[in-house]
Amino acid sequence: MGHTLGRGSLGGMTDGTDPAQTLRRLRGSIDNIDAALIHLLAERFKATQQVGVLKAEHGMPASDPAREEQQIARLRRLALEAELDPEFAEKWFNFVVAEVIHHHTAAARER
Amino acid sequence: MGHTLGRGSLGGMTDGTDPAQTLRRLRGSIDNIDAALIHLLAERFKATQQVGVLKAEHGMPASDPAREEQQIARLRRLALEAELDPEFAEKWFNFVVAEVIHHHTAAARER
Repeated sequence: MGHTLGRGSLGGMTDGTDPAQTLRRLRGSIDNIDAALIHLLAERFKATQQVGVLKAEHGMPASDPAREEQQIARLRRLALEAELDPEFAEKWFNFVVAEVIHHHTAAARER
Repeated sequence: MGHTLGRGSLGGMTDGTDPAQTLRRLRGSIDNIDAALIHLLAERFKATQQVGVLKAEHGMPASDPAREEQQIARLRRLALEAELDPEFAEKWFNFVVAEVIHHHTAAARER
């Protein structure tokens, strides 16, 4: 189920392909990409958690506006190169960083 | 600059390592992971854009609550396996999907 490759449409996005089949194929790719994204996000949090512990141990501030500004500029540049909307890249980054700062302040409180 | 490997601390997180150096190392990893995330997000948007066009061409609704429910359950499971907070994974997914639906409705309007 979900693996039938009928109609000689192995080539993919050719005209006349069953739209339900095309949708299934695209969703399969989205699911694979999402699994990779989740694993990379997990790895990112492992690194930011270490940063959080380090900062808490040495009394460094949880957020670092200058560093974040550099990160945003770089990610917008990478997004442009990858043909991703840089506005989305920035919003996405701010969303992830807000979550990281939330974790850092929680880690600092626990000490 | 930023590549000095003094103090015999090539091994990384050993006690007594300069915290500024450890921070620099961790930030280098975060930057690498972020570049990978941006490229995967770009690839995800390419796929969802194709889904958007397909849906608009065939008059399918932009959102699909049953599919999204399955995706969230799966991503929470993957997050747990990867030791990522499943609450964060779900919030993150909802953030990305909101952006995708925004693009889909815009694509439908343009037709």
